[in-house]
Amino acid sequence: MYFDFSDKVNCLRRKLELFMESVVYPNEKVYEDQLNCQSTRWQSPPVMEEMKEKARKEGLWNLFLPDREYGAGLSNLEYAPLCEIMGRSLIAPEVFNCSAPDTGNMELLYQYGSPKQKQKWLLPLLNGEIRSCFSMTEPEVASSDATNIETRIERDGDSYIITGRKWWSSGAGDPRCRFAIVMGLSNPEAPKYERHSMIIVPLDTPGVEIIRTLPVFGYDHAPHGHAEIRFNQVRVPKENMIWEEGKGFAIAQGRLGPGRIHHCMRLIGVAERALEILCGRVQSRAAFGKPLVEQGVIQQWIADSRIEIDQARLLTLKAAAMMDRYGNKSARKEIAMIKVVAPNVALRVLDRAIQALGAAGVSEDFPLAAHWANTRTLRLADGPDEVHRMSVAKLELREQARKRGKIDQE
Amino acid sequence: MYFDFSDKVNCLRRKLELFMESVVYPNEKVYEDQLNCQSTRWQSPPVMEEMKEKARKEGLWNLFLPDREYGAGLSNLEYAPLCEIMGRSLIAPEVFNCSAPDTGNMELLYQYGSPKQKQKWLLPLLNGEIRSCFSMTEPEVASSDATNIETRIERDGDSYIITGRKWWSSGAGDPRCRFAIVMGLSNPEAPKYERHSMIIVPLDTPGVEIIRTLPVFGYDHAPHGHAEIRFNQVRVPKENMIWEEGKGFAIAQGRLGPGRIHHCMRLIGVAERALEILCGRVQSRAAFGKPLVEQGVIQQWIADSRIEIDQARLLTLKAAAMMDRYGNKSARKEIAMIKVVAPNVALRVLDRAIQALGAAGVSEDFPLAAHWANTRTLRLADGPDEVHRMSVAKLELREQARKRGKIDQE
Amino acid sequence: MYFDFSDKVNCLRRKLELFMESVVYPNEKVYEDQLNCQSTRWQSPPVMEEMKEKARKEGLWNLFLPDREYGAGLSNLEYAPLCEIMGRSLIAPEVFNCSAPDTGNMELLYQYGSPKQKQKWLLPLLNGEIRSCFSMTEPEVASSDATNIETRIERDGDSYIITGRKWWSSGAGDPRCRFAIVMGLSNPEAPKYERHSMIIVPLDTPGVEIIRTLPVFGYDHAPHGHAEIRFNQVRVPKENMIWEEGKGFAIAQGRLGPGRIHHCMRLIGVAERALEILCGRVQSRAAFGKPLVEQGVIQQWIADSRIEIDQARLLTLKAAAMMDRYGNKSARKEIAMIKVVAPNVALRVLDRAIQALGAAGVSEDFPLAAHWANTRTLRLADGPDEVHRMSVAKLELREQARKRGKIDQE
Amino acid sequence: MYFDFSDKVNCLRRKLELFMESVVYPNEKVYEDQLNCQSTRWQSPPVMEEMKEKARKEGLWNLFLPDREYGAGLSNLEYAPLCEIMGRSLIAPEVFNCSAPDTGNMELLYQYGSPKQKQKWLLPLLNGEIRSCFSMTEPEVASSDATNIETRIERDGDSYIITGRKWWSSGAGDPRCRFAIVMGLSNPEAPKYERHSMIIVPLDTPGVEIIRTLPVFGYDHAPHGHAEIRFNQVRVPKENMIWEEGKGFAIAQGRLGPGRIHHCMRLIGVAERALEILCGRVQSRAAFGKPLVEQGVIQQWIADSRIEIDQARLLTLKAAAMMDRYGNKSARKEIAMIKVVAPNVALRVLDRAIQALGAAGVSEDFPLAAHWANTRTLRLADGPDEVHRMSVAKLELREQARKRGKIDQE
Repeated sequence: MYFDFSDKVNCLRRKLELFMESVVYPNEKVYEDQLNCQSTRWQSPPVMEEMKEKARKEGLWNLFLPDREYGAGLSNLEYAPLCEIMGRSLIAPEVFNCSAPDTGNMELLYQYGSPKQKQKWLLPLLNGEIRSCFSMTEPEVASSDATNIETRIERDGDSYIITGRKWWSSGAGDPRCRFAIVMGLSNPEAPKYERHSMIIVPLDTPGVEIIRTLPVFGYDHAPHGHAEIRFNQVRVPKENMIWEEGKGFAIAQGRLGPGRIHHCMRLIGVAERALEILCGRVQSRAAFGKPLVEQGVIQQWIADSRIEIDQARLLTLKAAAMMDRYGNKSARKEIAMIKVVAPNVALRVLDRAIQALGAAGVSEDFPLAAHWANTRTLRLADGPDEVHRMSVAKLELREQARKRGKIDQE
Repeated sequence: MYFDFSDKVNCLRRKLELFMESVVYPNEKVYEDQLNCQSTRWQSPPVMEEMKEKARKEGLWNLFLPDREYGAGLSNLEYAPLCEIMGRSLIAPEVFNCSAPDTGNMELLYQYGSPKQKQKWLLPLLNGEIRSCFSMTEPEVASSDATNIETRIERDGDSYIITGRKWWSSGAGDPRCRFAIVMGLSNPEAPKYERHSMIIVPLDTPGVEIIRTLPVFGYDHAPHGHAEIRFNQVRVPKENMIWEEGKGFAIAQGRLGPGRIHHCMRLIGVAERALEILCGRVQSRAAFGKPLVEQGVIQQWIADSRIEIDQARLLTLKAAAMMDRYGNKSARKEIAMIKVVAPNVALRVLDRAIQALGAAGVSEDFPLAAHWANTRTLRLADGPDEVHRMSVAKLELREQARKRGKIDQE
Repeated sequence: MYFDFSDKVNCLRRKLELFMESVVYPNEKVYEDQLNCQSTRWQSPPVMEEMKEKARKEGLWNLFLPDREYGAGLSNLEYAPLCEIMGRSLIAPEVFNCSAPDTGNMELLYQYGSPKQKQKWLLPLLNGEIRSCFSMTEPEVASSDATNIETRIERDGDSYIITGRKWWSSGAGDPRCRFAIVMGLSNPEAPKYERHSMIIVPLDTPGVEIIRTLPVFGYDHAPHGHAEIRFNQVRVPKENMIWEEGKGFAIAQGRLGPGRIHHCMRLIGVAERALEILCGRVQSRAAFGKPLVEQGVIQQWIADSRIEIDQARLLTLKAAAMMDRYGNKSARKEIAMIKVVAPNVALRVLDRAIQALGAAGVSEDFPLAAHWANTRTLRLADGPDEVHRMSVAKLELREQARKRGKIDQE
Repeated sequence: MYFDFSDKVNCLRRKLELFMESVVYPNEKVYEDQLNCQSTRWQSPPVMEEMKEKARKEGLWNLFLPDREYGAGLSNLEYAPLCEIMGRSLIAPEVFNCSAPDTGNMELLYQYGSPKQKQKWLLPLLNGEIRSCFSMTEPEVASSDATNIETRIERDGDSYIITGRKWWSSGAGDPRCRFAIVMGLSNPEAPKYERHSMIIVPLDTPGVEIIRTLPVFGYDHAPHGHAEIRFNQVRVPKENMIWEEGKGFAIAQGRLGPGRIHHCMRLIGVAERALEILCGRVQSRAAFGKPLVEQGVIQQWIADSRIEIDQARLLTLKAAAMMDRYGNKSARKEIAMIKVVAPNVALRVLDRAIQALGAAGVSEDFPLAAHWANTRTLRLADGPDEVHRMSVAKLELREQARKRGKIDQE
C-alpha cells in the first residue's frame, strides 16, 4: 500500500485480475484435460493460443519489458504487482507472454543482441510465435559456481563449435522452442570471469540432441519440460555470438537480475493464492467439535503466512524500485535477498495450506502440490539459497566496513 | 547401539542388508523401466514377483507379524531395525511382504478377524498372492477427526449395505488388490466411539466404483495408486463384518499402533539413505575453490541430520519396546510422539540432501524427490501432526496431574 | 530506501546519529559506572540530565509527538527512522524524552486528557521534569486478555477509590516517577469492553504501596525498574478519571498503537547494532585457520540477519504510513503484525551475535545480553505474540471473506 | 524407560527426589534470601553447608565419580538419571558435591593427577571443603579453537611461570575456591596438539589477580562467579604440572567428555522442571473464555516439549552408555551430538514456559529466567554448537567412507 501505484498500473491490475477470474482460472482444468487427451503431452494445448490471443487483444502482453517500443514500458516496480497476479496460476505467465525463461531471454536479446539477432529471434519471441530455452546448468559440475561450466564454445573459421552436456534447459520440451542460449567456456586462458560466452544455438542444428526431459517431484511439466541436451560438435555461424566472446558473466549478471525478481514477484502471487485456499477451506470444515478456523494452530498459520507474505512483497518492491533507480548491479544485494526470501516464504505458506487441507492438498484437486514442486526448484534455480546468502554477507560486510571507515574519519 | 539386538536379529539385519545391496537397489531402475514399458503402469512389473520369490526363499518374509505361526515371531523392537532397512527403498517393503497398507490389514485380520475371514483373506495376503486396501478417509469431511466419517454401513437381512465415498484408499490401483477394509457409520445412535464399524468389501462386488487414482505431488504411485472409490449400495454378506458392529474405533486403535510405528521405522531408513546420498555427493563436487564437504553450511547439515536421525531412531525403539512390554494402548503417547517426529526428520534430511545435490535432487536420478513426496503424505496419513501433538499434550497433562497428586499426598 | 524521507527527516537523522556517536555511546559506560557508584542504583545518574540538556538544545526532543504545539510535529513515518536510531542504545530514548512508558502516557494525555490533566501532568512530562508509569498488568490473572483485569475503581462522592494489585508498572522505581495511569474495573455491569476505566494516580497518594521491583533475567533495570504496586483503597479526585468511565479499552486501543510501533522502531535499531557488533567481531578473530568471517555459517548468519532486519523495517514503515493515512484503528492489523515480527527478529539477530562473540556476548562487555533480556519482554509486553497472531488471523479472514463476497457478486 | 535402571539406581533416584522435595526446593528461596542479607553476596550462604551435611549423611555424595574408592562407583549411565534430578535446581548440584566445574576437575585429578596432587587437591574437593576453577578461555582469542590459547607456562628451574589473561574461570568468585587448573602454552615448538599443558595454580599465589567477575544476562551468579583473572608471572612448583608437559589437549579430551555429558544430564532436568511449571500454570489460568490449557498453541508447546525432552534424554543415555562401554574417545561423536542438543532443547522448553507464564516468567518468581541465562551459556561453554557440529560432521563422513569402502570390497 505504501508503495503506491499509478493509475495506469492500478488499471492494469484490475484488468489483469478480471482476466484471471474470467479466462485463466476457469481454463486451468481445460488446459490439463486437453494436455492429457492429446496424442502426446509434449504439445501446447489449443486453449493456450486462444487465451494468448485474448490477452494480446486486451493489451495484456509483454508487460515485463521496460522498453516502450518492444514492450509495455513499465518499470520493474510497476510490473511487480502485475507479475504477482500472473504468478497465481501456473499457466498464466505464458498467456501474457511473460513466462520464464523466455522473458529472461527476451530481456537479454533486447539488451545485448545485435540488430540481426533481434530481428531473427527477439521479434518472434515478442510475438509469442516461438519459444526459447536457456542452457547454463551442467550435470557434471556444481553449477552453483558458474565458473565451473565446462561446455566448450570454440571458434572455427566463421563458425563456433559447441561441445558439451547441459540439463535443466527448461522449455526445450515444447515443439515451439526454436533456440537455446548456451553459456560455455570459450576463452579458458582469460581471467576467471571473462572465460565464458553466450551464444544462440537453433535447436534444429545438427548435433543438438535432446536426451530426455527431467521430472520435478513427479511432474513432467509438459509441454514445457526440463531437457537434458547433448551438444555434439554443434556448428553455428559466428554471428550467433551474443555481444562478444568472454561476456558470458557480464550478460548473466544483466539477465539474471530481472529474471530473478520476476520469479519472486510470481512467488508472492503463489503464496497469496495458497493462503486464500487455506482460509477458504478452514472455514468450511470442522473437527473435534469446532470449525478448523477456530483451532488456535490454524490461526497462527494464517497470521504467520500473512506476516511473511507482506514482508516478502515489501522487499520485492524495494528491490524492484532499486533496480529502476540505480540499475541491476547496484540492486544486487536486494535481488539476492529476495531471491532467498520469496521461495522460502511461498514454500512455507504452501506447506501450511497443504497441511490444513489434508490429503486433498497433495493431490491434483488443488494447485498447492504443483506450485510447491515448482517453487522448490526456485531454491536452486538461478543459484541456491546458500550462494545468495554468501553474496549478501559479502556485500553487507563491505558496507559495514565503509560505514566504520566513514565514522572513523569524522 | 544401546538397544542391543539379539544374534537372531543381527543375523537378519546382515542378511537383509546383503539382499538390499544385491537384489533390491540394482532393481530399482529395472522396476521403473518395466513399469514404463508395460502397456499400462497399473500392473506390477515382473521383477517384483522375482524379488518376492527370492526374499521368501531367504526367509525374509512377513517379518512384521509377531505371531510365530503366521509371521516371523519378532517383537516390535526386533522388527524395528529390519523395517528401517526395508524403508530405504520405495520398492523394498513389498519385496518382503511388509508393505503398507497390507501389513496393517494383516495385523487387523490376525487380531480381530474370524477364522473364516483369516482363511479367506489373511492367508492369501500372507502368501503375497493378493493385496488389499484400507478405506477410511473421505473427501467430504475433515477425516483427521474420524468421528466425522459418514459412509453408511447398514444391516439388511443377512447382508450389510455400504454407501458412501472414500479416497486415498492406497493400493486399490493394483489389479492384485482384492478387497478393502471399509470404516463406516453403522450405529448412528450409539455413543460417539461406538458408532462405526469395519467391514470387508471385495472389490469385485457390484457397486464398487473406482473413480480415479490420486497423484501425490505429480507421482501416480503406480501400480499401487491412491484410489477414490464410490460405494453405491454395495451389498456384502454379514460375515464380512469384522469383530462386531460398533467396534470400528476399537479396531482402529489396535490397527493404527503397529501401522504407524512401521511407517516411522521405514522413515528412519529413508533419512539414512538421504544422508548417505548427501555425504557421497558433497565429497565429489567442488564450488568456490573447495569441495562442497568443506563448506561450513554443508557440515552443519550433515551434523544436524545425524543428530536428528539418531534421536528419532531412539524414540522409535523406545516406542516399540513399550508396545512389546505394555501393549499398544499404554504406548500410545510414544506412538503419537514418534508419528510426529519421524516424517518431519526424514523431510528435513531429504530437503537438505536435495539442496546439496542441486537440480539433480528434484529429479528422478536420485530417490530423494520421490521419497520426499511419499514422506510428506505421512504428516497427514494416519492423523496429521497437529492431532497427534494434541494427544501427546493431553496424556502429558494427565501424567503431570497424577505426579502432582502423588507428591501432594506424601 | 524506497520509503524516501524528506530533507527535514534526513537532517534530523544525521543530527541524531552524530549525537549518538559523540554523546550517547561514549556515555553508556559512564552511566553504568555512575549508577554503580551512587549510594543507590534507584536514582538517575547525573550524566542523564546532562545528556538531556544537550539533546534539548539540539532540538532532539519529544520527536515522537505528531502535534506541532506539544511535540516535533513529525508523522509516524517520519519518526520511525529517528526512533530506530534511539533504539540502538538502552539509555538513548530517555535522553531525547522519547522513552517508554512516558511516550505512551504523553500520547494518551495529549489525546484523551482534560485541559487540567494536560496542564498538571502532560507538560512536566514533555519538559522531562517528571516521569510516569502505566499500571495495567496484574499478577493474579492472565492479563494477555485485558478483560480479566480485576483492580477496582469505585466512585465515592467526588473521588474514586482504587483497590488492587498491579505489577510490571515499569518506571515506578525511579524517584522522578510521579504518577501512574491505572487501568481498572469501574463498571462491572457494562458490556464487556466498557467495564474498565483509566485513571491518574499520583504515586504519593496514601495507600499506594510499591512492594518491590521485579528483575528481568537478572537485570534490575534501575533506576527505572518494574514495580509491583498494591493500591490499598487509594482515593483520588474524580477529575483524575481520563476521558470518562468505561473508556479504558477505547483508550488502550488508542494508546497501544503508537506505543507498540515505537517499540518496534527501536527494535530495528537494536538489531542493527547487534549486526554491526557481530560483523565487527568476526573480522577481527580467527579460528581453525581462518578468520571467523570466512566461516560459512557466520556468513549465513549475517545474510539472514540483514534479510530479516530489512523486511522488519519495511513492515514497520508500512504500518507507520498506514497509521498516518488511515488512523490507528485501520492500521491495527499491520501494528499487530510488526509487534510479532520486530522482537523476534531482534532476538534472533542478538542471539546470533552472542553466539558469534562467545562468552563475551553474554557479559556486560557488549550491550547484547542486556538488549536481549529487554527485547525478550517485548514478546510479552503489550500482548504476547500469540494474541497478536490471533488478531491478525481474524482480520485476515474478514478481508478474505470480503474479497470473496466481492468476487462472487461480480 | 527402555534404558532400564538397576534397583540400586532406582533406589538412589527415589532418595534423591525425596531429598529435593523436602530439602532443596524449599531452600531455594532461603538460599537467595541469605545471599542477599549477607554483607556480601560473594560468600556461600549457611544453608548450603547445612544441606551438604544432610546430603552426605544420606549417602548422596560424589555420585558422579565412577571410582568406588573415591566416589559412588556409578557408571555414567547410572549417574545420568540422578544428575538429571540434581539439574532441576540451580543450587542442587553443589549440595551433593556434584557441581561444575569441580566435578570435572575432580575427574581430571583422579585420572591424571599425581598421588601428591590427589592428596593435596583432590581429597579436600571430594570432601566438599574447598572448591576449584578451570582457566581455559581467554578474552583475547577465539577460544572455540583451543589451539589459539596464548597464556604462557614457562619452565624456570624447579618452577613454572604462568603469564596471561583468562576469563570465565567459573567458581573463582567463591572464597572457598582454592586453586585453578590453568591451560597454557608451554611448548610452542611442538606439534599443534602437544603445545599446551595444564597446571595447578593455587589462587593465593602472588601474581594471581582476580580483575572482576562477569555477569551472565544480568546475573552475577554469586557466590560462584565467573572471574577474569590475570596471571602476572605467577610462579608455582614444577610438581603442579598435571601429567606432563604438552598433555593439555590429551587431558582436555579426557576431562571434557564427562564434564560435557554432566551438563547435558542436568539440562534434561532443567527442561523437565520448566515443562512442569508450564503445565501447572496453564491449568490455573484462563484467557479469552477458556483455560490456557485448552488453547491449541499451548497444547502444541507441551507436546513439542515432551517430544524434544524425551529424545534428548535418550541420546544422553546412549552417549553415557557408549562412554561406559567403549571409553570417552569412542563416544566423542555422541558426546558432541548431545552437547548440541541438550542446551537447545532446554532453551526452547524454557522459552515456551516463559511465554506461557507471561511477565512472571522473566522474573525471579519462577526459576525459568535464571535457568535460561545459565543454559544459554552452555551453547558456548565447552565449545560452541557450531564447533561440535563440525566434529559430528567429520566423524560422520569418516564412518560413511568406511561403510562405502566395506561395501565396495564385498
